[in-house]
Amino acid sequence: MLGNFIYSNPTKIYFGDNVQKNLVKALSGIGKKVLLTYGGGSIKKNGVYDDVINALKSTGKEVVELPGVMPNPTVDKLIEGCRIARENNVDFILAVGGGSTIDYAKGVSVAAWYDGDAWERFWVRQENPKPGERIIPVGAVLTMAGTGSEMNGGSVITNRATKMKIGKVFRDDVMPKFAVLNPRYTFSLPHRQMVAGIFDTMSHILEQYFTGDDDSTSDYLAEGLMRSVIESSRVAVKDPENYEARSNLMWSATWALNTLIGEGKSQDWMVHMIGQAIGAYTDATHGMTLSGVSEAYYRHIMKYALKRFARFARVVWEIPAEGKSEEQLASEGIDALVAWIKEIGAASEITSLGVTEDMLEGIADATIILNGGYKTLTRDEVIEILRQSL
Amino acid sequence: MLGNFIYSNPTKIYFGDNVQKNLVKALSGIGKKVLLTYGGGSIKKNGVYDDVINALKSTGKEVVELPGVMPNPTVDKLIEGCRIARENNVDFILAVGGGSTIDYAKGVSVAAWYDGDAWERFWVRQENPKPGERIIPVGAVLTMAGTGSEMNGGSVITNRATKMKIGKVFRDDVMPKFAVLNPRYTFSLPHRQMVAGIFDTMSHILEQYFTGDDDSTSDYLAEGLMRSVIESSRVAVKDPENYEARSNLMWSATWALNTLIGEGKSQDWMVHMIGQAIGAYTDATHGMTLSGVSEAYYRHIMKYALKRFARFARVVWEIPAEGKSEEQLASEGIDALVAWIKEIGAASEITSLGVTEDMLEGIADATIILNGGYKTLTRDEVIEILRQSL
Repeated sequence: MLGNFIYSNPTKIYFGDNVQKNLVKALSGIGKKVLLTYGGGSIKKNGVYDDVINALKSTGKEVVELPGVMPNPTVDKLIEGCRIARENNVDFILAVGGGSTIDYAKGVSVAAWYDGDAWERFWVRQENPKPGERIIPVGAVLTMAGTGSEMNGGSVITNRATKMKIGKVFRDDVMPKFAVLNPRYTFSLPHRQMVAGIFDTMSHILEQYFTGDDDSTSDYLAEGLMRSVIESSRVAVKDPENYEARSNLMWSATWALNTLIGEGKSQDWMVHMIGQAIGAYTDATHGMTLSGVSEAYYRHIMKYALKRFARFARVVWEIPAEGKSEEQLASEGIDALVAWIKEIGAASEITSLGVTEDMLEGIADATIILNGGYKTLTRDEVIEILRQSL
Repeated sequence: MLGNFIYSNPTKIYFGDNVQKNLVKALSGIGKKVLLTYGGGSIKKNGVYDDVINALKSTGKEVVELPGVMPNPTVDKLIEGCRIARENNVDFILAVGGGSTIDYAKGVSVAAWYDGDAWERFWVRQENPKPGERIIPVGAVLTMAGTGSEMNGGSVITNRATKMKIGKVFRDDVMPKFAVLNPRYTFSLPHRQMVAGIFDTMSHILEQYFTGDDDSTSDYLAEGLMRSVIESSRVAVKDPENYEARSNLMWSATWALNTLIGEGKSQDWMVHMIGQAIGAYTDATHGMTLSGVSEAYYRHIMKYALKRFARFARVVWEIPAEGKSEEQLASEGIDALVAWIKEIGAASEITSLGVTEDMLEGIADATIILNGGYKTLTRDEVIEILRQSL
């Protein structure tokens, strides 16, 4: 059943490989002074930076650069960005990069003009800006598929001092006004990053799919997306410059986390909570922390939702159901998921990510326990899942 | 492969059965003088009218009523609506009803302030309003699921004099600012109207699914939606007041035609073109004209796309593929579609809709031939499909 909800997604998407035209179109309607934020400089090697700068110039913008956004953006970097945004009084933030860069831009968007500590605004205060609260509008040029940040209000910032990696979901005004999605911009991404993005996408879908045992259109859409991700991932890992596969992966990632497939139902997100705690301890790649704990997590909760796991096996993996118990079919679905994790080269354990036995208690303490899924975990269960994942 | 596209859908959806609260929320942000348009008065019997009027009153709106929108709204009615909108200088149009009423509201929206003939504005002129062209914003309270008009720019108006039933797709400003989707509002719909809406939804998906033989995320989403529609339709025809089924049907109908599942691919729409020509001749219920010609149409084009029809059978209907030729599997998929049409009680032929042999030439002449599908039809092929459908 679809519970009550409000759906609203104003982000305008320019999708395709007609780069310069899309960029100019997207930038035409926005302000004059643009804070251009990006990561470690890979966009200067693959031509994306030049495309963006040319489009900014041709539309007459004044540009303030803010490079150096790290994979798990920190609160120190957030504070720096807020200062630069204020000092230059920018009227738009253009994030060029993957989810970290876009998440970071949203953090600056809400915190820049907050009269107080940026981390406090991000973490302590209510998510949605109050009427009249000054935020800076954001746009995005995406170079890595996975997080979905290009078409949602999500933002994750890490506080190294307190070992907290915290996600917030902002709405409406903080969501990107536009996002330019060019599959070709993802071609030069390192193979491991592509794979991490693929699993991140899959994990977003799983977190919304494995809740409830009712009949909901949202779950059918989730199944369609998973089938598309699986099919395209198999092509992309062998042939990363296959435009068809990369375009499907990019678009699937967007819809995996722009609220659609979660509307009207509860959501789980425990794989993300455990993965984010691992990330705060190890700085491991986000998508790999998710794949690394998924087998143990799903085998643990399977018994609470045999029907849904059996459906997952039948519909998503096309595993024949005949002559099998629901439990056997359910288990074969997880087998298929694990085999696919290994096939695409995502992490199937967490030891290779730098997690050691002595960290488990600390990671469990840093894991935020949510209760939207089939089973509300105890701290002991989190530790057991982590141990199984070593 | 996903071809280049721009995705933008600003309509805000209030979904669920918490009626009065959603209505008041939706109406709070709009203008002061509202043109309230609706159909034959069924909303006065089922309580929807009272809900809407109470919400309009509680938000202090001045209301101008425009009832009497017919199932296939005519150009004469369009002209009347434009006159009333102008004379009263309304600043918002609230459509309460199904697709016909919402389509009609969009027609009035673009044509009301056009300096000339309303039909000319609707049919002859470019679809998108020019910058500065005055249009009247629209909102919707949906009482019938099927057309998807609540979250798109589509509008179909019928010109009885010229026997033309013409659809246009407006963008951006003409799309509903908001739509209130309350599954409970569809409970009192006559059974036949519910079934027609279900097939209309299915047909929208099929028209976008049966093009191309490539790998596209759009098609996987379409498959998910079809599976949801089939599942929920089987519940709803037996138990029309099943909230779960009606909520899934309502939300599926919205996403079947709000551009998502057609992004990046070509589209067919020949079943709609033939169905609309039948509608112009007979005034038959839209959804029934589509179901009435679907078997003949899909059997006719199947040979041009065996691979896609075989996939349709396997994924949408879960028909086992083992030991079957692609052609056999493809054919069994259409068998399943036809069996489902009969199971839910949609029309499986057009004789019962009032079509007679002597009309076929005229209907073929009124059929607009499009070329996005697997086969561009000749006039003779249209006649043959119509004859097969008698």
